[in-house]
Amino acid sequence: MPHAEHTDKKYEEELKKLREDILYMGGLVEDQIQKAVKSLVDRDSPLAETIIQRDQEVNRLDIEIDDLCIRLLALHQPAGKDLRFITTALKITTDLERIGDMAVNICERALELNLEPQLKPYIDIPRMAQIAQWMIRESLDAFVRKDTDLALKVCKDDRQVDDLNSQVFRETISFMIEDPHTINRAMKITFVSKYLERIADHATNIAEMVIFMVKGKSIRHLKELPQSV
Amino acid sequence: MPHAEHTDKKYEEELKKLREDILYMGGLVEDQIQKAVKSLVDRDSPLAETIIQRDQEVNRLDIEIDDLCIRLLALHQPAGKDLRFITTALKITTDLERIGDMAVNICERALELNLEPQLKPYIDIPRMAQIAQWMIRESLDAFVRKDTDLALKVCKDDRQVDDLNSQVFRETISFMIEDPHTINRAMKITFVSKYLERIADHATNIAEMVIFMVKGKSIRHLKELPQSV
Repeated sequence: MPHAEHTDKKYEEELKKLREDILYMGGLVEDQIQKAVKSLVDRDSPLAETIIQRDQEVNRLDIEIDDLCIRLLALHQPAGKDLRFITTALKITTDLERIGDMAVNICERALELNLEPQLKPYIDIPRMAQIAQWMIRESLDAFVRKDTDLALKVCKDDRQVDDLNSQVFRETISFMIEDPHTINRAMKITFVSKYLERIADHATNIAEMVIFMVKGKSIRHLKELPQSV
Repeated sequence: MPHAEHTDKKYEEELKKLREDILYMGGLVEDQIQKAVKSLVDRDSPLAETIIQRDQEVNRLDIEIDDLCIRLLALHQPAGKDLRFITTALKITTDLERIGDMAVNICERALELNLEPQLKPYIDIPRMAQIAQWMIRESLDAFVRKDTDLALKVCKDDRQVDDLNSQVFRETISFMIEDPHTINRAMKITFVSKYLERIADHATNIAEMVIFMVKGKSIRHLKELPQSV
């Protein structure tokens, strides 16, 4: 049946493209986060502007990948594992798009903070960004490889970002108490820290969806993470 | 063809159930928000605990509705408008589930704030909550009725919540500057305001997805909203 074979081949190609596109979009938002934090740390406002502009590409990819998913569903009517894979991809693009928005928010706060004297050197914020970027990469690797161990690792790493966020919060509060002139800037730093925490949450959401996709088991909202899934 | 007719009827019934389930889940998260804010305003910690517990029902619905969507895709292989409707439903459940999480976050801050003397009467926070609840209801009505005018109205209403959030932010900052003893509480109120702003953002996301579903047009990230779509 050459026709069916042709369809199969096309289908496999499109599934492969879907995996590649998701990884590409993930790489782009990782880079957006890294550069957004760089624009804050280096007080580089032109870079912040560039990153804000480049969010359009993230949004374009979101729409493109969703279209690809819907085309795959419409033309190939997948079942079972492939169906779960494609419906999970549809949800993942939303998380990646919102991570892109968070990078824009970081740039907006950077633009504001760059207009005032620097309150303090940034130590925890770049660390948070690095862990969050890593979490995005690993959650998407877990997705394309259907690797639930890696996905569970991402969920566990979220704790580190939460702890750093609490640390930033305590530090900015102590700045504010010592000198009320710092309140405005300290609040903005708190917000940047919150954006990074939310980025890590999105990566965790992706990892949880991967576990659900593979194992049909929801580990979301558990008080304690399991040792394995 | 009695068999096809039977399948059609079953399919229509399941689509109807999907619409009803989404509206039911929306009603539940609306109620979660309303009661979360009530637990803050009335300093009612037992209510906050109840609402945190009840988030499990939101999470259960999230999984149930996703399952229904995947069953619809697998068994009936819908195309065209129905396919877009179901894939949009898959994305909407994620937003609703996260709105549920925000209600939990509000309760957590309420529990902390209820342990300390009240900083100020809450005026803007309940207003924000009311608008956000309304936005959720209208975005879901827009979804089931495929009503893009109503969806556009929701996107426009988001501005009101953003403005109230800025107002709360300015007010809490002025408290903090006047008296550093208020910083901790003022920060927590700022966070509650942020959660409500994010809830309104989720409703806006849903409304944008409805417009995209019906018109194939993305109004997300436009600098200015169009008069009509």
